[in-house]
Amino acid sequence: MTYCVGMMLDRGLVLMSDTRTNSGVDNISTFRKMYHWQVPGERVIAVMTAGNLATTQAVVSQLEERNKAPAERHNSLLEAPTMFQVATIVGNLLQDVIEERAADNGQTAAAGTFSATMIVAGQIKGMEPRLFLIYPEGNFIEASFDTPFFQIGETKYGRPILIRGYERDMSFEAAVKLMCVSFDSTLKANLSVGMPLDLLVLETDGFTPLHERRIEASDPYFQSISTSWGEALRQALEGLPDYTLDAAAGGRLKGTA
Amino acid sequence: MTYCVGMMLDRGLVLMSDTRTNSGVDNISTFRKMYHWQVPGERVIAVMTAGNLATTQAVVSQLEERNKAPAERHNSLLEAPTMFQVATIVGNLLQDVIEERAADNGQTAAAGTFSATMIVAGQIKGMEPRLFLIYPEGNFIEASFDTPFFQIGETKYGRPILIRGYERDMSFEAAVKLMCVSFDSTLKANLSVGMPLDLLVLETDGFTPLHERRIEASDPYFQSISTSWGEALRQALEGLPDYTLDAAAGGRLKGTA
Repeated sequence: MTYCVGMMLDRGLVLMSDTRTNSGVDNISTFRKMYHWQVPGERVIAVMTAGNLATTQAVVSQLEERNKAPAERHNSLLEAPTMFQVATIVGNLLQDVIEERAADNGQTAAAGTFSATMIVAGQIKGMEPRLFLIYPEGNFIEASFDTPFFQIGETKYGRPILIRGYERDMSFEAAVKLMCVSFDSTLKANLSVGMPLDLLVLETDGFTPLHERRIEASDPYFQSISTSWGEALRQALEGLPDYTLDAAAGGRLKGTA
Repeated sequence: MTYCVGMMLDRGLVLMSDTRTNSGVDNISTFRKMYHWQVPGERVIAVMTAGNLATTQAVVSQLEERNKAPAERHNSLLEAPTMFQVATIVGNLLQDVIEERAADNGQTAAAGTFSATMIVAGQIKGMEPRLFLIYPEGNFIEASFDTPFFQIGETKYGRPILIRGYERDMSFEAAVKLMCVSFDSTLKANLSVGMPLDLLVLETDGFTPLHERRIEASDPYFQSISTSWGEALRQALEGLPDYTLDAAAGGRLKGTA
């Protein structure tokens, strides 16, 4: 599995991904699932991947035309006129890779063995930052402030805190903190999501990453979040109004709020 | 889907279940998924169910021998000598019902169409309270204080808070509060889990429910938890150490904890 979150804020985009891949629980490895490319001052485009690793690596390799000699390579993402076009290119390539591999193995693409999902984020000069979720079928949806973040992979454990904690005008620092909590909750519950994490912050009209970092398991900030969050949650629980059992009254509620 | 939690505490057992069943998103209904039986002063046994509703209702009907005239019915759970035997009866019946329905439809039981999972909890006089998770294959596992709670159905959203908030010596009131938060997080994230909730508290050596209640959507306590928890989480987040972007230093961390 995997856990990746892409989040849209008033001031830009924040992306975080884990690095664990596994085939069963006895075959785990660390692979980067976040990629980005830029034309400084003109565009920055990031991709995060979840699903079959051979599929997602094939898509990224083909985007970068690694089958050609270095001098002859063109990254079509760096030439696409709009982010919509970028999402279309990634979607088509993803769908092609899945379908080809499935066909070679006598399966349908829908069987899912070779399936993958991606988040595409970025900005091209003169246009707004945009955030897309790309489906294995090659189509995609775009985030708006009604649904301002996308998750892929093992999404459920870390979702409640994102729903509660997100605000569109939050600072990048607050958004990174929120994501760290979401990842920590997921890491605590599911072995298929693992450290280190990759973090990328794209400020609107920056056209180069404002902040980029690999957060290791030994990272003092992440460790402090992980430790403090347990305590903060317990205090938050304690602060909530108490339930009152009142057996004599057959469970009548006595509010103490 | 469904969401049910059974929790073992030093002082007894707490069970909570939702009541939504759905076949697609356009066919939703309310059904009780929590059942209990008692011989006052001697035993109390509770069952919660997730999965195919026809399967789980068939199991419960057969436990109660509803195919016989009322005077001739014997509930074998009320005659089993141990909770282990109770779990065995429920497991065998569950597996039989699934297998028979699958076979009638030319499927294997493993195909999952008729599958279901159950939580069995209770106490028989002279023995400890016990909590079991029953698999569709008919086998089961028992909770211990290493893994003191079981969830069935849509388990992921509400799991992180249970992991962080649970303590074996907590009061029943605190445990109900914790469960309300776990259910609220799940309800907020997944349409297939819905109000009202059923709550059952079994005190050790009580042999009759200490507290039993249906929590409606309009319940002022549950509403206050739902409202306060969002605010409490935001405050808990704010209280955590801030992340510092330091772009000039390539993302060097400046601890502010």
